Amino acid sequence: MKYLVGVDLGGTNTKIGILDENCNILIQKSIETLSKNGPVDTFTRIWDSIKELLKNINLTENDIEIIGLGIPGPVKDNSIVKIAANFSWGNNFNAKELMENITKKEVIVENDVRAISIGELKFGAAKGYKNAIIIPIGTGIASGIIIDEKAISGLGAAGEFGHIVYDINGRNCGCGLKGCLETIVSANGIVNLAKDFLKENPKGILYNSFKDNLEKIEAHHIFINAKNNDETSLKIVDRFCEALAFGIGSLLNIFNPEIVILAGGLAKSYDIIIEGVKKYLPKYALKICIDDVKFAQSMLLDEAGIKGSASLTVK
Amino acid sequence: MKYLVGVDLGGTNTKIGILDENCNILIQKSIETLSKNGPVDTFTRIWDSIKELLKNINLTENDIEIIGLGIPGPVKDNSIVKIAANFSWGNNFNAKELMENITKKEVIVENDVRAISIGELKFGAAKGYKNAIIIPIGTGIASGIIIDEKAISGLGAAGEFGHIVYDINGRNCGCGLKGCLETIVSANGIVNLAKDFLKENPKGILYNSFKDNLEKIEAHHIFINAKNNDETSLKIVDRFCEALAFGIGSLLNIFNPEIVILAGGLAKSYDIIIEGVKKYLPKYALKICIDDVKFAQSMLLDEAGIKGSASLTVK
Repeated sequence: MKYLVGVDLGGTNTKIGILDENCNILIQKSIETLSKNGPVDTFTRIWDSIKELLKNINLTENDIEIIGLGIPGPVKDNSIVKIAANFSWGNNFNAKELMENITKKEVIVENDVRAISIGELKFGAAKGYKNAIIIPIGTGIASGIIIDEKAISGLGAAGEFGHIVYDINGRNCGCGLKGCLETIVSANGIVNLAKDFLKENPKGILYNSFKDNLEKIEAHHIFINAKNNDETSLKIVDRFCEALAFGIGSLLNIFNPEIVILAGGLAKSYDIIIEGVKKYLPKYALKICIDDVKFAQSMLLDEAGIKGSASLTVK
Repeated sequence: MKYLVGVDLGGTNTKIGILDENCNILIQKSIETLSKNGPVDTFTRIWDSIKELLKNINLTENDIEIIGLGIPGPVKDNSIVKIAANFSWGNNFNAKELMENITKKEVIVENDVRAISIGELKFGAAKGYKNAIIIPIGTGIASGIIIDEKAISGLGAAGEFGHIVYDINGRNCGCGLKGCLETIVSANGIVNLAKDFLKENPKGILYNSFKDNLEKIEAHHIFINAKNNDETSLKIVDRFCEALAFGIGSLLNIFNPEIVILAGGLAKSYDIIIEGVKKYLPKYALKICIDDVKFAQSMLLDEAGIKGSASLTVK
């Protein structure tokens, strides 16, 4: 039996898992990334954790062959992190080389969103499709684009459809642009939408729950109240869905894919989101592309980070 | 020596060429498509023309092996035209099968924009690049997207970035949507921009040349006057370029390509267009994607239709 290793490196925490050959997680743990101590420290502690996890299920490092490593940021040639923005490890950081030196194992590095997408392709909702788009929506929004069963990279940064400009007069985005799709379609985005909307429309369940402290509204509060038919929350979700329909519609026109999969934290509200998206798609996408596409919810969900990284090692 | 055959099937006219193995046109002609007579008639006349052209340069049908056929509309699997909109030949029209039955040669069918893009990849401005986007701008705007040296098709209709919605309050588009990029960035689009603008700003060289008949303005008039520093024309071109920068910027964020190539009739005004696009790109694209990309003008230009179709037959 073959075992897989998936490492999901994040700005704050890093998730590490040992998986069976069907990508089921056998054991996992989360460690602090502590990137300020430098990449050698972080990668060494990751490798120590992998060995510890293996030992806990009576395996040794001889039972694993390849390590899959998902990292936020543009990744080129499954090796180089062009801008390690979340880690201050400098530009063109060769994550593959360092991890291989430490572990003496083959290491496959990929952008975390592309890793998730490959996970969905090999073990999740995109299985059996040649052309798929996986859209994780959480603190941000991005896309993993599968063409002929491969995730496209461009020169490393492909997939950043969250920075298509949706409203040139909109909010400033963390990326430096203004009015990006992500300023609305993300956890922060919908919270900002809600704050603006409730100031103009101070009524309804959501308003009454948070009127003393709008700062405490989180995305899930909005979706829960919308599901409970709070009219104000429904209107906020409707605006969110129209923006997402613009984004997905643009991707449909460009890629004419077989399937679009919503992933990430907000995909837990899949039903209400996809209903709103379908309502607005005919404003933003060609009929032929709408007729061709299916929609689905992520199957990997909260385990997408580890499973996606592990799936990088599967041929 | 090997010879290539390229057929560029259009709604009104069809261009047919015989080319050498370096994709130089040896002889060509244009015939009326006359699609109302049905596909058998059209394809038979195309084959007759190919044989006639071969004879004129002392070749026979034994000197050719494969025919490349570019057709407007969504093409699947190098065979099926899913919607033969310009021809009324019905949906899911198998162009490959019919042409092979008539010619007894292998026929490779492709969407005309993708054919042009493959031409630029093999013999033009995209040569040597793995990831390129070719954008023909003429009566419409579309894109041929090269990933790992192949043109992506999706389920047949990929590349229709001209129908990303740029201005939801904009003009109705021929596709049925409203405010598509194409309603501004196309030959008709810039003419409409000009008419609207001149009604509000009745001055300048362009205005004085056409004030008695704004209907006679064509795209090239606007670009010529802009090059001659007519302030009004410069402002019209500026709006056109900002819209195009939105479109190209969106593609840069999504694909992070090595090169973007402007093609089609309006690419003759490449210098002035690309200057305006570069001015506005920082509003619409991530810096990393702007830094990575080069721009170039089509090398195939007016011969792109025949050369693109012929290039389909080159391995």
